[in-house]
Amino acid sequence: MEAVTFMEFEVSQEYLEWLREAIRRNDAALIRESMQEANPADILTVLYELNTEESKYIINLLDKERAADVIVEIEEEQQTAFLKNFSAAEIADFIDYLDSDDGADILNRLPIQTREEVIANMENAEKSRHVKDLIRYEEDRAGGLMAKELIKVSLNWTVKQCIDEIRRQAENVEKIYSIYVVDEKNHLLGKVSVKRLLLSQDTTRIADIYDNEIISVPTYMEEEEVASVMRRYDLEAVPVVDVLNRLVGRITIDDIVDVITEMAEEERQLMSGITEDVEERTDTVWLLSRARLPWLIIGMAGGLLGAQFIGIFETDISLVPAMAFFIPLITATGGNVGIQSSSLVVQSLANSSVFGENLSRRLFKVLVVAVINGVALSAIVLGFNILFGQEFTLSLVVAIALFSVVLLASLMGTITPLILDRFGINPAMASGPFITTANDLLGLAVYFSVAHLLYNF
Amino acid sequence: MEAVTFMEFEVSQEYLEWLREAIRRNDAALIRESMQEANPADILTVLYELNTEESKYIINLLDKERAADVIVEIEEEQQTAFLKNFSAAEIADFIDYLDSDDGADILNRLPIQTREEVIANMENAEKSRHVKDLIRYEEDRAGGLMAKELIKVSLNWTVKQCIDEIRRQAENVEKIYSIYVVDEKNHLLGKVSVKRLLLSQDTTRIADIYDNEIISVPTYMEEEEVASVMRRYDLEAVPVVDVLNRLVGRITIDDIVDVITEMAEEERQLMSGITEDVEERTDTVWLLSRARLPWLIIGMAGGLLGAQFIGIFETDISLVPAMAFFIPLITATGGNVGIQSSSLVVQSLANSSVFGENLSRRLFKVLVVAVINGVALSAIVLGFNILFGQEFTLSLVVAIALFSVVLLASLMGTITPLILDRFGINPAMASGPFITTANDLLGLAVYFSVAHLLYNF
Repeated sequence: MEAVTFMEFEVSQEYLEWLREAIRRNDAALIRESMQEANPADILTVLYELNTEESKYIINLLDKERAADVIVEIEEEQQTAFLKNFSAAEIADFIDYLDSDDGADILNRLPIQTREEVIANMENAEKSRHVKDLIRYEEDRAGGLMAKELIKVSLNWTVKQCIDEIRRQAENVEKIYSIYVVDEKNHLLGKVSVKRLLLSQDTTRIADIYDNEIISVPTYMEEEEVASVMRRYDLEAVPVVDVLNRLVGRITIDDIVDVITEMAEEERQLMSGITEDVEERTDTVWLLSRARLPWLIIGMAGGLLGAQFIGIFETDISLVPAMAFFIPLITATGGNVGIQSSSLVVQSLANSSVFGENLSRRLFKVLVVAVINGVALSAIVLGFNILFGQEFTLSLVVAIALFSVVLLASLMGTITPLILDRFGINPAMASGPFITTANDLLGLAVYFSVAHLLYNF
Repeated sequence: MEAVTFMEFEVSQEYLEWLREAIRRNDAALIRESMQEANPADILTVLYELNTEESKYIINLLDKERAADVIVEIEEEQQTAFLKNFSAAEIADFIDYLDSDDGADILNRLPIQTREEVIANMENAEKSRHVKDLIRYEEDRAGGLMAKELIKVSLNWTVKQCIDEIRRQAENVEKIYSIYVVDEKNHLLGKVSVKRLLLSQDTTRIADIYDNEIISVPTYMEEEEVASVMRRYDLEAVPVVDVLNRLVGRITIDDIVDVITEMAEEERQLMSGITEDVEERTDTVWLLSRARLPWLIIGMAGGLLGAQFIGIFETDISLVPAMAFFIPLITATGGNVGIQSSSLVVQSLANSSVFGENLSRRLFKVLVVAVINGVALSAIVLGFNILFGQEFTLSLVVAIALFSVVLLASLMGTITPLILDRFGINPAMASGPFITTANDLLGLAVYFSVAHLLYNF
């Protein structure tokens, strides 16, 4: 990947070999020097290529703050595994240097006892209070995303006082974005941008320059919605308030970028019938199999049900074996139409407007599209079959069945995600093997019923 | 949606009705007042509910800067359509107020003649130079994403000079993030954060406080890669340089959030076999049908090919009609396995590490997973069929065919996206109807071949 070549620090196979050798020689000074220019993300890239022993050696070499920055970047499951190699006191050391939201995330993944030990070992009292406050929030809510680090000032302060406060807090708050303005009871009143501060006189009062139109989110808001709010209003940070509008934290855009990426990955997994968050490169064969089996079995159960169903028409098939030829055509088209329909619904749910859609108008539109596509496909298949000498009755059966399947699969594909969404289930579930299996059965039912009718068996 | 209820400005059906009435009465003052608290995104929500005439009326009521902020938020196709209602001079007025990247995007979507007229009508000379500079870049490269608005300072300036420069630029650069440090030939040397500036003395020289470790991207970098760099290093803005490392622009995180969202939408469309960027709510029935037909026809062509293929075994089927029962089981399982496999590959390509994967090791892992799942599924289906009194030979045929299909579909599903990726095609294409169609044919071939062999027809 190009991503590292424009950096001063370059990760190459040669470097890795040199590094392994240096670790064996225990050449701490040289290793430390070689990593001077490296970003935490780059160091992590190196660690991923080393074994646990070697990785721990490197982490111990780095100063605590940098080590913490590397550890926070490790993927969830691997992070938990890696941290087992450190004592509670060592983990506490790392967390002392992290933003409170990252610290709380790490703590939440530790066994309860270790968690308590780590908290007890923390030296930074304020940080410890912060993470204890944060671990009680659900991970997928605004409260679980926010960090406690932020800069807040009082309405009647001057710019000078405000800058002094920033100076005091500078060490804790890495990226400032906005300074929040609160009253004496910590109610959120507004914000001042750093730019504004920079351009104002020292004696100016905050009350005269602050912006009282501020968008905030409540602690209980779901992360998807926080993401949608921040996208909608192009925010790089959003303050989080409790039910009494008291400022309790702040969510920054980097966390939201992660949320959006995870949402996309979750959707991909749902659409492809993978039940667990697995990664081919790093997860074990056993985990990968387990993540894939459930939907395969459900799909197969559908197939066996279909087999029972076709069994009813055994005599029909022995009379007209050609009926069997078009089974895949019917089931595949049903599946394809169903996935297209549900995917369009999922998309429109993601971009939902403020107003409830008119369901009947929507279904009517879906129906019209289905009729257009159904007629087109049926016409093609009818023409093809007649041209290539297929029996006329069967050609008609296939065309009629295909048309009906397109119609029914469109409706199913539209309604299913809407129902799932209503029950709080991710509607993308409906674009996966679920819809294919259901539509296979639907398609078979339609096909054989039409055939039975037209052949007058 | 909750998103607007925590704002001071609320969009309700009642408000809309009131607004339509107010527009009829031509009550400009009252309308303007009612929108005082509204954010551009909120005003747009209102416009989406009004007709073109009414929308234009509202836009003309707003002051130019706010109107421009609303227009820039409109979705691409609708924006182009809406702008047809304005003269070149009016559009030029809007663009004068926009960031150069947004202005260039709008210009790029206009007919060439209108574009020239708009540029000629622009009054802000610097902005006009900026957008002219930007429209020559490809939309999906760093150059096409960047804005020209940024603050750059010279290495030997003082903090005071730097703040003066910010003051001078404040109107143009809405969000500062970092101040870039360049030499006299505009080569990028480093950056200073606003926080740093705020905490330094007026007389301090930039050379003493700037950070010379800076990540930049070249103008030609693809937007996906820019997104991955900014995610990797948690950047809220990244400077863009030309081939000589001269600073030419800046990409901010809000644009990257859009890129990531668009990538996810594109993947969803590829996976569901929709060929155009359509939206159910807003696009016409005709457009929706057209976006769906191509893959449906390809899928159907596959189905017809399958029909021809099964036709070869017509006599087999007339002898053992039960063979037809398991066609959907075989094709569905092949499709499901194929989509799972390709989806895992797509995911690992998205999170690719710096090092080339070992292809043979990877295929071996895929194979092991396939064997585990294949054995599990075959065992279940064999047990089920024998239990429910299916003929033994057929039960065996189905089990063997199923196992082979799982294996072959896994390999196909793994290799196809890798090949597509190699040829610069979005590998998610392989998780769509493509893989299902291919695997249907593959499954049928395996099934009937095994049957033919075992039955010894």
